[in-house]
Amino acid sequence: LTSKDACLTLDWIGDAQTGCLRLLDQTLLPTKVVTIDCHDVETVWEAIRNLRVRGAPAIGVAAAYGCVIAARSGPQGLKRGADLLRTSRPTAVNLFWAIDRMEAAARCAADITPDAFAGLLLEEARALHEADRAESLAMGRLGADLIHDGDSILTHCNAGGLATSEHGTALAVIFAAHEQGKSIRVYADETRPLLQGARLTAWELAQRHIPVTLICDNMAAHVMKQGKIHRVIVGADRIAANGDAANKIGTYGVAVLASAHGIPF
Amino acid sequence: LTSKDACLTLDWIGDAQTGCLRLLDQTLLPTKVVTIDCHDVETVWEAIRNLRVRGAPAIGVAAAYGCVIAARSGPQGLKRGADLLRTSRPTAVNLFWAIDRMEAAARCAADITPDAFAGLLLEEARALHEADRAESLAMGRLGADLIHDGDSILTHCNAGGLATSEHGTALAVIFAAHEQGKSIRVYADETRPLLQGARLTAWELAQRHIPVTLICDNMAAHVMKQGKIHRVIVGADRIAANGDAANKIGTYGVAVLASAHGIPF
Repeated sequence: LTSKDACLTLDWIGDAQTGCLRLLDQTLLPTKVVTIDCHDVETVWEAIRNLRVRGAPAIGVAAAYGCVIAARSGPQGLKRGADLLRTSRPTAVNLFWAIDRMEAAARCAADITPDAFAGLLLEEARALHEADRAESLAMGRLGADLIHDGDSILTHCNAGGLATSEHGTALAVIFAAHEQGKSIRVYADETRPLLQGARLTAWELAQRHIPVTLICDNMAAHVMKQGKIHRVIVGADRIAANGDAANKIGTYGVAVLASAHGIPF
Repeated sequence: LTSKDACLTLDWIGDAQTGCLRLLDQTLLPTKVVTIDCHDVETVWEAIRNLRVRGAPAIGVAAAYGCVIAARSGPQGLKRGADLLRTSRPTAVNLFWAIDRMEAAARCAADITPDAFAGLLLEEARALHEADRAESLAMGRLGADLIHDGDSILTHCNAGGLATSEHGTALAVIFAAHEQGKSIRVYADETRPLLQGARLTAWELAQRHIPVTLICDNMAAHVMKQGKIHRVIVGADRIAANGDAANKIGTYGVAVLASAHGIPF
């Protein structure tokens, strides 16, 4: 895999009528790089349910493409598929947001053929996919200014290209800083219980040749105390209007520890 | 296993000349309860080296009994055995302390038969073992006053009967409070990377029918924030005269988090 391929979390292959959603099976990383071609909604449901695709933005895009498959059976098929997909990961806000958006697009399409219906939904899903990619890229470029040459950065869980369509959110910032030629090192919390930091974040960084040190979650305070961490950057499942953020278990603890050590979070 | 048997970390079986050190192989817990009979110093060395016996006090007692086995070959044998045992776990202060004490006892024994020499060292090891047991018991009784009825207590790593001759240090306090009839609940950090909390602490508490909730290390801050933790109690590999303590990785982070949440540590 090249570093670019490595971040190809998911994509639509082919046309609206016969194509499929291709997903990288993240449960097998880092030891196996295997993709799954989803030709029916149940396969998309299973992939979201079992975290083969995970990360708030990526789940939303996967669900949108799942709606395209469902729409091949017309508006009733879309409704059944959307209802099923909503049960795949009830805590993922992007899931509901993306499905709602697909259904809203469908409502604007009256009296068209099933083929045209699926085609219209594929257009919507592609737009959503492209917007996610552009947002990740913009986030990376904006955030990169916060990273200084020589910085060591702690991150928790995975907010990289594997959590979005491409680039990522928290890791997009690190990728962008690296591409600007800044010399940086990342400390990646392994992130128990499912080890997304160990399996995904460390792998993504290694793919891009960015120096990474994998640590147990409970080591974060110690490396902070040693002065090895200059800033902390993590993703968020959701950020509320007042600034509160929801994210992977352990994020709050990292924030408290960063505060106690005077480290920007 | 009864709860009493479950804490029989190690013991000397038989007399000084033909007996052996019997150890519970802690690497196999909680799925298998297997003991190892150590008839030579190399087996004791391997057991300490590979954490079959671990916990500062237990390592000290195991090394003392290892010296008894070595002393069967006289003072020269004791020297060779002691030198070997010192290399088993260079970070364990109790290891050196116990071996030094055994060698000091040996120096007081001039011109006696090899049998008498080993017998004298067994007496010394038994005294050290008994003192450790008594100290654990006393620590538990003294500490139990700090635990109130209805308390939920967070602990990290294993400082139970498995880390000492019996009773434990941090867990001795919890055991004593439980025996006083106080209703308590323990949150046990799983303690990566070697999972002593998950494999040993949760097991010891379950053996004694004390309610225990196993959590990932990174969940500690969250349960503190939820108000579920009333106090934190952990063991220590060593405590310096100024109050500084050395203990398992992650202990410092738990202390910082407890402080941030106003929880006695």
